[in-house]
Order: sequence, then structure tokens, then C-alpha cells
Amino acid sequence: MLLSRKDVVLWCSIFVRLPPSIDRSIENSDNVSKSESYFMWTFGVLEEKCFGALDLDTRKSFLFVPRLPESYAVWMGPLYTLDDFKMKYKIDSVHYTDEIAEVLKNHGASVLLTLKGINSDSGSESKEASFTGIESFQVNNALLFPEIADLRTVKTDLELDVIRYVVEVSSAAHRKVMRMARPGKTEYQCESEFLHYCYSVGGCRYVSYTCICGSGPNAAILHYGHPGAPNDRFIQDGDTLLFDMGANYMGFAADITCSFPANGTFTSMQRLIYEAVLKSNLAVMTNGKPGVLWTDMHLLANKVLLQELKNGGLLTGNVDEMVKAGLAAIFQPHGLGHLLGLDVHDVGGYLDNNPPRPKEPRGAEKLRTARVLQKNMVLTIEPGCYFIDPLLDSALADPKLAQFIIKEEIERFRGFGGIRIEDDVVVTENGIENLTKVPRTIQEIEDWISGKDDGKY
Amino acid sequence: MLLSRKDVVLWCSIFVRLPPSIDRSIENSDNVSKSESYFMWTFGVLEEKCFGALDLDTRKSFLFVPRLPESYAVWMGPLYTLDDFKMKYKIDSVHYTDEIAEVLKNHGASVLLTLKGINSDSGSESKEASFTGIESFQVNNALLFPEIADLRTVKTDLELDVIRYVVEVSSAAHRKVMRMARPGKTEYQCESEFLHYCYSVGGCRYVSYTCICGSGPNAAILHYGHPGAPNDRFIQDGDTLLFDMGANYMGFAADITCSFPANGTFTSMQRLIYEAVLKSNLAVMTNGKPGVLWTDMHLLANKVLLQELKNGGLLTGNVDEMVKAGLAAIFQPHGLGHLLGLDVHDVGGYLDNNPPRPKEPRGAEKLRTARVLQKNMVLTIEPGCYFIDPLLDSALADPKLAQFIIKEEIERFRGFGGIRIEDDVVVTENGIENLTKVPRTIQEIEDWISGKDDGKY
Repeated sequence: MLLSRKDVVLWCSIFVRLPPSIDRSIENSDNVSKSESYFMWTFGVLEEKCFGALDLDTRKSFLFVPRLPESYAVWMGPLYTLDDFKMKYKIDSVHYTDEIAEVLKNHGASVLLTLKGINSDSGSESKEASFTGIESFQVNNALLFPEIADLRTVKTDLELDVIRYVVEVSSAAHRKVMRMARPGKTEYQCESEFLHYCYSVGGCRYVSYTCICGSGPNAAILHYGHPGAPNDRFIQDGDTLLFDMGANYMGFAADITCSFPANGTFTSMQRLIYEAVLKSNLAVMTNGKPGVLWTDMHLLANKVLLQELKNGGLLTGNVDEMVKAGLAAIFQPHGLGHLLGLDVHDVGGYLDNNPPRPKEPRGAEKLRTARVLQKNMVLTIEPGCYFIDPLLDSALADPKLAQFIIKEEIERFRGFGGIRIEDDVVVTENGIENLTKVPRTIQEIEDWISGKDDGKY
Repeated sequence: MLLSRKDVVLWCSIFVRLPPSIDRSIENSDNVSKSESYFMWTFGVLEEKCFGALDLDTRKSFLFVPRLPESYAVWMGPLYTLDDFKMKYKIDSVHYTDEIAEVLKNHGASVLLTLKGINSDSGSESKEASFTGIESFQVNNALLFPEIADLRTVKTDLELDVIRYVVEVSSAAHRKVMRMARPGKTEYQCESEFLHYCYSVGGCRYVSYTCICGSGPNAAILHYGHPGAPNDRFIQDGDTLLFDMGANYMGFAADITCSFPANGTFTSMQRLIYEAVLKSNLAVMTNGKPGVLWTDMHLLANKVLLQELKNGGLLTGNVDEMVKAGLAAIFQPHGLGHLLGLDVHDVGGYLDNNPPRPKEPRGAEKLRTARVLQKNMVLTIEPGCYFIDPLLDSALADPKLAQFIIKEEIERFRGFGGIRIEDDVVVTENGIENLTKVPRTIQEIEDWISGKDDGKY
């Protein structure tokens, strides 16, 4: 790690924290809280408009908080003293933000490493810290970003504890929803049940992204649930439900998808597609481990899915040739999964010394990372299979793809929606540990919905 | 109304709509959705990045929607046709945003009135509409804002229908919370119960502002519930609870506060303060009507409160002199209430031809409007009485205020928290109608919490 080398010891890294979203749904850092998630990662401070610094040589931590007016106590609550902050966040040295330059000077800082970089997921840039008097320091804004982004991809045990918690709460909330969802309810009632469980039982005030509660055909709309399509359909008998929901705790995100029949019993069509996606998910779960390329896992998931669709009579021909032709992206137009942490789509996916984003438009180009798996990386594994009219139409109109498709079988699945099975996992010494605790096999799901297996999860 | 004068007939008003918040809590327009609330008021359109125009001569309406790529269907859902928009929103003429200039030219528009103005509540400016080709029109951005802002302060019957609904849902949710809140629960569990009821029963996905769920001393923190103080205290026996929460439906806001004892039975101290605030609330309810100045109502509420505190033995001396000295703002450091509508703190509070904001720092300067009441204005009536240490300290240190205070009595109330009674009302032909349906007298509250009076509200 560059940051631990002896030749860059004399420095402070400063992070600015943007005002946090006060809203129920914290979007991933691409949208509202990017600087915040770096600040959270380093200092864990919840209050607004603070700055932080670390001396990489002595490991001493500094927090700078705004000097608030007396009226703050009337509107916002009692004013913390500097000692209150020190105790609350276990920071070595706490000062006011108007003292940054003076404090750092007195501490002997000469080089400041500030955070500046492009998020590979969004293309947007993190906001660099600045303060009155910064011009009297030597500032380097290039060194820090790739180091911190890389550090964030491998979780510490303490981080894993929080992630385990938020995934456990989210799993329990999904299980609750599976039992209350049924024909006649609305999609948004399922969303509300999830939110209520996560908050009232788990203490998770926010979810990590807008809940996707697709029923029937809506299960094929990948970002369903947005303001133009706000989970407002009544659930019908025979629907497949695809619920993609994850709580947020102390900034850490869960991101889980459960797919199941609204009436509690799989039809043969639902069974076929569900089993195909589950096999795809399990293939990655079995083969993932340190040293493996994530792009290879994506490819493996694709192959298993296409093989299963072939076995089920929807496709014909050679699976390797299907993959080469790009058929997988017709059924799963998204990547296999992504890094997960303080951002739902966590940082560090495409740093300079990592494998670049795949180029060919066959689904893998959507991957949010192409990295080699390392121990203690946390990722989602989320293969899916959807029947999306414009994609099916385009495939049927393209002889290179149409040759593999058994048209009359595919037509039966128009309007079916889709299945996604999304787990949150951690890479272990020699494999993958699934943190998600929800019914996954068809038997488990049918049992759970019918009221069996209390205490199993 | 200027906008109906014959000399400004040839024109179109264009509103730009900012992307809506996709979050659970819609802040008032000061923060995230100002342009949106003007756009919502005029067109009611939920989709992003649309423009709208009205021909004030012919009353013809135009909507311009973005030309979306095919991939939208994969990620966001089926693409609406122009006819779909026309039907969904009953707009006369729907086109793509890249056609705005051409369509308006062909329609014969020469003068465009665009929306630009400063929100008196926040000081921030609405974002003016612009489009390629706008330079070929005569644009006037001064006329529209004061007219629209003024129109929005007086609600139509259709607007009142929606407001009645969202206030009714919020009232029912408050009643639910009153029965589940008790010592041992956390404040955030009460927040979660409110959110869940509003969404799952009332279909209200958003609340209009971050829920304030103050218990015990937190009930004296006016904006409690923010990220630095996130409703995370355990409720104690003997606490007063002050819950300020309001749902949002189709953009329209409710804003209701209920204050009640956590254990269901008022103590003599709680009774004293509650009765004082309720009398203050009822005085305004009784005396408010068209033609009355809102500043006079604020003053009335102040006087009743101080008189009651005097009767209760906390104050001594002449009430008019107390008011003149500014004592009311020690106990109620906020205004009596505010306009309510598509924004929680609704627009039009201080337009050029209205009474200006009161100057003297005695509480009235915090009022968000000083206007004369008109029929179909919707407002909150929200007197309160809080025991806020720094304000009490400042009053006791100021001989002009200290002369009215019976120190040993006031000291008993340190840490008490506070009481606020906030109703949403509409001004009628000759009085005020209270839309809020929650238990308000001490008897009603104790009965409701103990399980009586089902079906009464």
C-alpha cells in the first residue's frame, strides 16, 4: 500500500463531508452521498459539515466540526462540546473548522493528501476538500483516491459485522414480506411492510435504494419502482413477484432480491425459469473464491442459464456459440453482481491497475467491476432471467440470435415478467459465504409462504 | 388577475420540472422540489424532465416530454406514446421537448412568460425554463411568478379534496401511533408506525418532511429528528411526547402535531401546559376568518398562552407588557403557523403587495406569512410552549423579561420538553374549518389511548 510507505508519512488526508440526505432512501454514492461514504468509512461521523484528517505517520486522527450558533440548541438540539465529539467518535483531537489550517500547521503537517477522483460507476467526481489557508500547504489530490477506493473493496472484520447485521435485518424483512404478499395486495404495501420491518425492528431508518416491487409483467422492468412507475399495481393471482429491497445501517447497504409466486405455489413455467436462475446463482456460489476473475463468474452464470433454458426447451443449439453471439444479454441484460459496502454499487470497481470494463455489448460490459476476487470482498450475486418484449423482438429479428430461439416456446413467456435471485456474499479464504438468509429453493419458498419453517432462518 | 388581462393574451407560460426526489421524505420546496411544485400545480405530471405551456387566451395546454431511448423499456418500463400522456393527464397537445420552439411558433406564441422568483421562505430562486430556440421569442420572466404564487395561496375545491384526504390519512396515522407509543418503545418505532400506516393504508409513499418524534426533553427541540438527532431515544415513563408528522399525497402536504403523555395519563404539570396551548389553539380557531391579519392571530395566540401561564402560576404581571417585552418568544420561539399546500411551507407568504415580515425579534418575525386571511387559504395553526434551557437562561438574565417570571416555578419545568398542538385548517366564508381529526382535549386523548372512542374520528 502506497499510503503506508515511509516516504509519504508526513501528511494528512482531508475529507469533506457533504450534507447527508435526510430522506428515507439513501441512493448510492453516485447520486447523493459519495463524499459522505468516504468520510463515513474513515471517521463514522454523522454530523454535517465536518472535516477529518489522519496523520499517516503517527496514526493520530483529527476531526473539525462547525462552530454552531446558540440558536442551534433551540432548533436542532443541545450543542456538543469538542469533548463530546471526542468521546462519541473516539477521535484523538477535535477542533472547529475555522481552526483547520492552524491545527495542521502546529501539528507539523506539510503535505496534505486530499480526495479527488472519478467514480467508475457514475462518472461523477468526488468533491475535493478545501479550507481557508489550504494554500500554505503542499496539496496532492492524486495519491489518495485510488488507495482509499481500493482499501474500501476489502472489508475489515468490523465492517463485516455491520454488513452481516444489515443483511440479516433485510433477510428477515424479505421473509416477512413473502408471507404477507398475495393477490389483492398492492406492490407498495409490500414495499411498506419491508420498510416498516427494517426500521421498527432493525433500526434501519433508510433503505439503500428505492424498493423495486415488480409483480407480473413489472418483474421484467429492471429499475421498476421509480417515481414514474411507483410500485402501484395490484398483485394478481398467477403473478411472479420480484422484490429487490435492501436496508441501510450506519451507511452500509444490503441489496437482496427474492422472486416467488404471488399465490405461494410455483407453476411449471415459474418452476422452469426459477430453477434455471437458481442453478446459475449456485454455480457462482460454488466456484467463486480468491483469485477468480469476476468476468469469468459472469460468463459461468450466463452459460448455466442458457444451458437450463435449452434443457427447458426454450433454446436450441450450442451454448458456447449462444454466448459468443450475445444471447445471454437478451435474457439477463445486466451484470452478474457488484461490489457492496457503504455504497450499494460500491467504489473501486475499475481502478487503474484493475482489469478494464469488458468492451463487447454482450451483458458483461454492464458489469460494475471486472476484478479478481479477494478475501473479504463483499459482492452481490444476482443472475436473472427476464422476458422483455423489445429485447425478444430484437433477438428474433437478428438471424445470429434467432437461430437459437424456439419462437413458439419463447412467445408463451411474453408477459411472464422475470426472476432474479440476488444474494449478498463475502469472499472467504477459499470460497464464498452467503450472508443472505431467505428461502431459496422452490421447496423452501413454498414451505415458508405456507407458514412452515419458523425458526429455520 | 394580471394573467387574465386582454393585453397579455398572446403567450405561453413555460415551467421546467426538476427531477423529483425519489426519496421517502419530500422536503418542502425550499430544498428539493420547488420548481416541481409549480409544475405539479399546473400540470400534475409525474414523469421527469417535462416542460409544460398554457395559452392563456385559448386555455389550450401543452406538454413536452423527453424523447426516450428504446433501452428505457428495459430499465424503466414501457415507453408511453404521446397519446398515452394526452390521455393520462388530459393535456390538449403533447410533443417532444426537442419540438418546443417549433410547436410554440406554429401555435402563434410570441411572448413567453417564464417562472422566475425568490421563495420568501428559503431565499432560493426557482429555476427558469429554457430550451433551444427560446431566443426567437420575447421572454418575460417577471410577470408570472407573483401571479402564480398568489393563485397557489387560495385553494380550488379540487385541491381541497386532495388536502382533505392527506390530512385524513395523516390524522388516522397519528391516532394509530398514539395507541402504540408507550414507555419502552423507541421514538423511531413511532415514526415507522406512522410511515407504514400512511403508505400501506393511505397510499402515501412520501412524508412531507422528516418526522419529528420528540420524547421527554427532546420535545423541546423544534427540529428534532434530523440526521444528527434521528429519533433514537427510548421513551420513558412520565415523558411528554411531541410528534410532528405529515403524509404527502400527489405532492400535497399534511403537517400535524400531537402532544400527549407517553403513559396515557396527564400529570398536573402536563395538564397545565397542555391546556394553555390548547386554549391558544382554540382562540385562533374561533377568531380566524377572512379579513383577519395572520399577525393578529399570532399575537392573540401569544396572549392566551401567557395569560394561561400566569393563571398557572408560572408568570406574574401584565400580559400586554409581557408581549411587548417579547416574553412569548421564550416559550414559543416560532410563528403561529404557515400556508400549506404543495409545499409544507407553501409559497406566496410575502409577495410584493402583501404585508411585510414583522421586524421585531419577538417571535412574529419567524412567521412565514403576515397576510390577511382569505377564503380557501389552507394554513397550520400550531401554537406551542417549550422549556428550552438557553432561552430560559437568557430570559432570567434579562431584567426586562425576568420581572415576569416566577423563577422557582419555571425551574420545575426544566427538562419537561414541550407541547405543540398543530392543526391543518381551511379558511371558510366566515370562519375556520379544522380538517384534522385527532383527539385534542385531555379527556379525548386519555380516552383514545385507553382504547375508547373507536369510530369517533
